[in-house]
Amino acid sequence: MSSVSSPISTIAAELKKKLGSDNVISDAGDLAKLGGDKWFASHQPDLAVFPRNAEEASLVMRLSHENDIPVTTRGAGYGYVGGCVPVRGGIVLGVRNLARIKEIHNTDFVAVVEPGVITGDLQDAVQAQKLFYPPDPASLRDCSIGGNIATNAGGPRCLKYGVTRSYVLGLEVVLPGGDVVRCGGRTHKNKTGFDLVGLFCGSEGLLGVITEATLRLLPLPPARASVSAGFVDMAAAAKALQAVFAEGFLPAALEVADGFTLNAARNYKPGAHFPPGDALLLLDLDGQKESVMNEARVLGKLLESCGSTGVEVATTEEDREKIWDLRRAFSQSLKATGLRKLNEDIVVPRGRLVDLVNFARDLQGRSGFPIACFGHAGDGNIHTNIMVGDYDNPEIRARADAALDELFGQIIAWEGAITGEHGIGLAKMRWWDKALSVENRALHQRIKQAVDPKNLLNPGKFVSLD
Amino acid sequence: MSSVSSPISTIAAELKKKLGSDNVISDAGDLAKLGGDKWFASHQPDLAVFPRNAEEASLVMRLSHENDIPVTTRGAGYGYVGGCVPVRGGIVLGVRNLARIKEIHNTDFVAVVEPGVITGDLQDAVQAQKLFYPPDPASLRDCSIGGNIATNAGGPRCLKYGVTRSYVLGLEVVLPGGDVVRCGGRTHKNKTGFDLVGLFCGSEGLLGVITEATLRLLPLPPARASVSAGFVDMAAAAKALQAVFAEGFLPAALEVADGFTLNAARNYKPGAHFPPGDALLLLDLDGQKESVMNEARVLGKLLESCGSTGVEVATTEEDREKIWDLRRAFSQSLKATGLRKLNEDIVVPRGRLVDLVNFARDLQGRSGFPIACFGHAGDGNIHTNIMVGDYDNPEIRARADAALDELFGQIIAWEGAITGEHGIGLAKMRWWDKALSVENRALHQRIKQAVDPKNLLNPGKFVSLD
Repeated sequence: MSSVSSPISTIAAELKKKLGSDNVISDAGDLAKLGGDKWFASHQPDLAVFPRNAEEASLVMRLSHENDIPVTTRGAGYGYVGGCVPVRGGIVLGVRNLARIKEIHNTDFVAVVEPGVITGDLQDAVQAQKLFYPPDPASLRDCSIGGNIATNAGGPRCLKYGVTRSYVLGLEVVLPGGDVVRCGGRTHKNKTGFDLVGLFCGSEGLLGVITEATLRLLPLPPARASVSAGFVDMAAAAKALQAVFAEGFLPAALEVADGFTLNAARNYKPGAHFPPGDALLLLDLDGQKESVMNEARVLGKLLESCGSTGVEVATTEEDREKIWDLRRAFSQSLKATGLRKLNEDIVVPRGRLVDLVNFARDLQGRSGFPIACFGHAGDGNIHTNIMVGDYDNPEIRARADAALDELFGQIIAWEGAITGEHGIGLAKMRWWDKALSVENRALHQRIKQAVDPKNLLNPGKFVSLD
Repeated sequence: MSSVSSPISTIAAELKKKLGSDNVISDAGDLAKLGGDKWFASHQPDLAVFPRNAEEASLVMRLSHENDIPVTTRGAGYGYVGGCVPVRGGIVLGVRNLARIKEIHNTDFVAVVEPGVITGDLQDAVQAQKLFYPPDPASLRDCSIGGNIATNAGGPRCLKYGVTRSYVLGLEVVLPGGDVVRCGGRTHKNKTGFDLVGLFCGSEGLLGVITEATLRLLPLPPARASVSAGFVDMAAAAKALQAVFAEGFLPAALEVADGFTLNAARNYKPGAHFPPGDALLLLDLDGQKESVMNEARVLGKLLESCGSTGVEVATTEEDREKIWDLRRAFSQSLKATGLRKLNEDIVVPRGRLVDLVNFARDLQGRSGFPIACFGHAGDGNIHTNIMVGDYDNPEIRARADAALDELFGQIIAWEGAITGEHGIGLAKMRWWDKALSVENRALHQRIKQAVDPKNLLNPGKFVSLD
């Protein structure tokens, strides 16, 4: 079946016959578009295939296995770390033909979906049935459930609701070699054997190809409210945050922005109202209407009593939208600077918020690069953006990379995590060896070897068997 | 170092020298007490050791590896499925010297504990600092955190708060052979590599020995309330349950009991007030005081409008205690019948509650054994208790086992799970092959082989390499 001279062309021919030529791409121009994501690295694959079901995905994996051709799965291509870049070429397995919402069950509280479903589309579909799928990565209108599972994606609502893993009950996965495994199921609890569902969640395409996911749904909270509060500095904001927790609040979201971010947003949106000061907290509440409205007012007063420079309580969808529009302006305004935004989704222990922002200020002074911190304060997952003018200039790039090394070194010293929700991909490879002990990396290696002994799935990433 | 004639006695001598003779048991009489848990099976180990730190646990694992001696970890011995029974003898590794709460950090919102800490003690300790550790298995006053992690223990609060896995941020684990691995950490989000923390959670002692856990804590909800409501039958209760979800409530607990359970409890506690009818719902709310009090009243009215035979709303701790005392009576009254209670923690898809209870009634008719269903309705995790007079009588036992086979066959046919929170242990081994596909079991095997190639950790359980 395989040809020594050109196994790829033999495979392409066989796949075209089985899947139809529309679902196999071998044209170089078209392949070039499938080499990267939102990070800057890219590598052109030799072939792209779009299976329509697990059986076809299994065929791809079998041919890969028989011919020692790498397979790299591609979701919506909206990752931030180059996780889907096929660095060793081979086959890109895309999910555009695996994009159906197969079932939404309103008494079992589950959705059964294929990996190519766009996250925001699923949220809309379940909401129409008064159900709720909480994970809300910023790119939810563009990213896919499969990519969310591969990176264990997060978002603002993780503080109360947890990451994507918390919503995956069951998976259908095609393994290297072509075996199709179903793990977990449609029950909300399951202790049958090892947590294989958890093992595949966040495995960044290194262990299997997900062809179906059964997701946990919640009842839709009937009401939401948002509160924003400015503070003179991050220390004051952090104190207020502790006061919120001390009163027993666990908000759905608890976002923060530093002075640099706020100033960029003020320049970008001159008409918008940002409270004065060098720090902003943004809180979301959800639940029963009367409770949420009342608690939003209580929270507003609490934040005032913590010395806020300006509190806004939004209890209508229109007012909430205004507040969240400011939140979205953080990222947009940084992009609008024209600088390259090295967005690092580092995580610090929750009590380290002020330390992180102070460290970033010092690093900015030392390195000369502007640094903006904003993100999920409740999780300690602060997006730390080093802003670089000309990253393609080798001298500047070396300086920027040195600043990143300093940042990551400090994060690791604080027992932080080098990625909270984006994944390792290519972007975090530099710090992989420092973030995990040699024993931990060896265990990763053994698990990779057990599942993908020929190292064919997304090779060249955080576990390689070379 | 090892002796061909009696490796155990050589190991015992070496361990006594290193750990002190108080921490090594080789006396047969004392060993007999360490052969089982709350399930009926037992097997005497050849040696028991009680390491005081990871280094000593590592020594045990190294000696086990060098001499091919099995090691079975023992928590508090309160498991329900024989998970810690050392069926192949060898060494029992007990955690009584690993029972310190090392740290409770009220701004990082983490606790660092050793595995022998009793779950209820940890809850008390964090509560004293206005913090909250949600997992609450029924045996929380007797069971240990290590056992909870090994079985991914649940309890009534999982509906809102999730299982033990959701609260484990980091682990220190000793692997077969003696390597010590730290995985995860003290951040509330972490996407660094594979989810090794999740892999060890629920692995029932088959992959490693946990010597330390970093646990996620929440702010303590300042108020709680409980609502109980009787219904004429389970169909009416299930309708009411759907109405609760449809209004967007996600209670902290949502428990159910069937008619058999209620009647047993009425006989056991003649003075107590149980509402009339063949089904009872029990709901817990927690959060901000005014919200909780108000929502409890709203819920009470909602349940009345669903045709409840009697609603009680408890907004004081004293009244709540009365309601939960009835809940605890379910299990006590079944035990008080003097029958052996084959307590199966099966899980059905949430919408199958009525189907399950009807099936149990039919099975009771066919088999002649009384069957009581109660438990975590919100999760579909209903403890289904087949009550057997003389389980040691081979003829009766065969009939009881046949009834269990019928029950488990139906659960699997419904895409349910054979265990929700107790684990497989020995008790569920009979249905392991039926619950998982051959591909799924093969993947279990490959992971076990990768981590424990000599099959020395808790051998003879759901994955064996023989």
